Amino acid sequence: MTSALQMVQMIRDGETTSVALVTAALDRIAETDDALKAWIWLDRDGALAQAHAMDQLRQSGRALGVLHGVPIGLKDIIDTADMPTECGSVALAGRQPEFDAVLVSRLKAAGAVILGKTATTPFAFMDPAATRNPHNMEYSPGGSSAGSAAAVAAGHVPVAIGTQTNGSVIRPASFCGVYGFKPSAGMISRTGVLRTSETLDQVGVFARYYEDVALVGDVISEFDPVDPSSFCRPRPRLLNGVSSEPPVAPNFVWFEMPYFDKLSNDSREGMMAVLDALGGQVERLDAGGSFTGLVESQNIIQYYEIARNLAEIRENHNDTLSPQVAKLLAHGATITDAAYQEAIELRNGAISYFGSFFNDFDAIITPSAPGEAPLFSAGSTGNPIFSTVWTLCGLPCLNMPVLMSENDMPIGVQLVGGPEEDDRLLRTGSWVLATLNAAEADAAESDKT
Amino acid sequence: MTSALQMVQMIRDGETTSVALVTAALDRIAETDDALKAWIWLDRDGALAQAHAMDQLRQSGRALGVLHGVPIGLKDIIDTADMPTECGSVALAGRQPEFDAVLVSRLKAAGAVILGKTATTPFAFMDPAATRNPHNMEYSPGGSSAGSAAAVAAGHVPVAIGTQTNGSVIRPASFCGVYGFKPSAGMISRTGVLRTSETLDQVGVFARYYEDVALVGDVISEFDPVDPSSFCRPRPRLLNGVSSEPPVAPNFVWFEMPYFDKLSNDSREGMMAVLDALGGQVERLDAGGSFTGLVESQNIIQYYEIARNLAEIRENHNDTLSPQVAKLLAHGATITDAAYQEAIELRNGAISYFGSFFNDFDAIITPSAPGEAPLFSAGSTGNPIFSTVWTLCGLPCLNMPVLMSENDMPIGVQLVGGPEEDDRLLRTGSWVLATLNAAEADAAESDKT
Repeated sequence: MTSALQMVQMIRDGETTSVALVTAALDRIAETDDALKAWIWLDRDGALAQAHAMDQLRQSGRALGVLHGVPIGLKDIIDTADMPTECGSVALAGRQPEFDAVLVSRLKAAGAVILGKTATTPFAFMDPAATRNPHNMEYSPGGSSAGSAAAVAAGHVPVAIGTQTNGSVIRPASFCGVYGFKPSAGMISRTGVLRTSETLDQVGVFARYYEDVALVGDVISEFDPVDPSSFCRPRPRLLNGVSSEPPVAPNFVWFEMPYFDKLSNDSREGMMAVLDALGGQVERLDAGGSFTGLVESQNIIQYYEIARNLAEIRENHNDTLSPQVAKLLAHGATITDAAYQEAIELRNGAISYFGSFFNDFDAIITPSAPGEAPLFSAGSTGNPIFSTVWTLCGLPCLNMPVLMSENDMPIGVQLVGGPEEDDRLLRTGSWVLATLNAAEADAAESDKT
Repeated sequence: MTSALQMVQMIRDGETTSVALVTAALDRIAETDDALKAWIWLDRDGALAQAHAMDQLRQSGRALGVLHGVPIGLKDIIDTADMPTECGSVALAGRQPEFDAVLVSRLKAAGAVILGKTATTPFAFMDPAATRNPHNMEYSPGGSSAGSAAAVAAGHVPVAIGTQTNGSVIRPASFCGVYGFKPSAGMISRTGVLRTSETLDQVGVFARYYEDVALVGDVISEFDPVDPSSFCRPRPRLLNGVSSEPPVAPNFVWFEMPYFDKLSNDSREGMMAVLDALGGQVERLDAGGSFTGLVESQNIIQYYEIARNLAEIRENHNDTLSPQVAKLLAHGATITDAAYQEAIELRNGAISYFGSFFNDFDAIITPSAPGEAPLFSAGSTGNPIFSTVWTLCGLPCLNMPVLMSENDMPIGVQLVGGPEEDDRLLRTGSWVLATLNAAEADAAESDKT
């Protein structure tokens, strides 16, 4: 497997072609996806035609895009004008959008080759997708961006796009052992992406290689006047962040969270080993009760908004929802405007708090999920609570696949950065990855002696 | 005067602020624009507020845009949600668009500070604007992008945006002695820009320093699914082009054009001196009669389309048009669909011809205009015919302000490149500028001895 950054360079240098890369990707998918079920739609002919067009552009000496010829996957709540977009629901079977989502048009204009659509939980909510975890098919890949995480983990594509309203990028990235990056709220346009919660929905990137979250993030980070969350300010240059060295060793905060009783033993032990490796750079703080209120606020906002955004589905296709989800949406519809407003105000207070918090710290270091992925048979995509507060506040979040469970399943470590400081977060991530690698090498060395 | 590229670097390094640069620009405008009339709307307060916001972003360590804090002007046919957009016509007095043009939102998201709107001929057509030529107020600045060219030439702003349907970027750039760059058709979104001719309208950039046409061109070159001329392919990196060296000395073609009898003596002599300086790199070809047919086709397409696009103006505000323009638009409305289709087909043939032409040549070298600017009192913006064929075919065009007339007025030299090879054209332009500089230095040296 090769990174997207390397693929583009190899195409540029004539060492491979987009057709060769796309053909290989389609072959890998054909071999494994009957069991894995990461993809719900593959556009084999369209992808090969697009790959051929990208190769032609190169041969004719035309401009090459920063994703020139790279195969990529899209969560199926992201509109595509040339493929169905069913949002994981039989209620939208055969739905064919008229336009590409803005982020899709940016990927295409950068030369990316969209292979197809990846599986999502219905409406990017809680009912599991059919997708399995590539590390062990007995396990869930998490949700809601199940297929995007699994397709990357299985080596189908170097990069896939997902979304996160609570923990739907970071959690499946953690369960599937890949990098997951959810930039600051408002960095990436959501126009043409299913709206479940206008306040909370955010786009993110899955990648097998760290630098690729930045490569793709830079392409799709742009002001969109149509998306009310999109801000008209310069975007941090993510690829610069990844390749920069911090001026001084970064410092971290570890919050002891009220919900840390949900953390598995191996996850907690792994986290403690990571903190040890970072040594004096980590300050431990007690988050106290304030985070509990924030988790509740996130739930109120999400349920209130999704119940209204999916009103038509609830009315006409309620039978396609699981009883649990139907009940949650019905509950969302009963949340009062006053309760919702109170939750929004609590959120605004937290946003304001975090606005200056990162003057003192480079990043929060925290688990990505309670532990390894749940078993597929358990019928759940896992608990998103380890992402809730950060998503609520629109902070940039990064999952690094650096730990393994007792059952040999991946466990991720999460870094959370300051708003619109995504480049700094990725710079800090580079430092953490290098530091953990060095610690591991040291340990291996001392094992030998 | 400082280039936009330098301004951004100075703001980045803390050597100046956007507020200081914008204040200085507003002061220069206040001093000179009563006579010059380059601007028809200045948003002093808005520009200073935006400059302040850009300075705040820098101070808070947030991401800096590639145009961070740079003052810039927009031709008044480009929609702005926070300023009127009257397209140079009393018929649209007080018109206030609801949205920014796509290119404006890209400029803003890159950190640019829009100072205001520059004068345009009414509907970017033939009636002169009130603007004078900064080199000598007795002369016209050309049209239709009169104010953008004049504002840059007068040192009000380092960069301004214009448009070209026939010769409205290259000609005023030539007359005003600044760089003018009209990228390949489809590079820059026209959504939110007055539509006069859907086939021919193209956006361009004026700059005092060569590298700035690339800096700004890169920001506004992006796929826009809403604009039917916009292509969903990677954009050439213009700034790379400017700073690249050609692998071998580029070669040029000089077409002896059927309309070269319109060339003034000093312009022809200047062009011949330039060709001499480029020496063996220039092949001279006779264009024969084919270009005459193309000029006629351009006229048919432009008049046919503008008559239809301005149908409402013709119907309700015909009295605001000059008799000459009213007559031309009335004529446009009588052009038959068959004649129009024939012109479109002739154009398609020429596009196809130029599609392979640049396999053998790096650029066409040709005059930008018949000679120096016409006198303002002559009541004409000058003849665009030296741009007609290239605009018709959507080829990228560059004006280089390298000659002076006998009356000490600027005369430009034009380079025309292959479609979507704008980076190569700018690379060739860098080579030409360096070669002419070296030839001039040699001449000065031999004068001394």
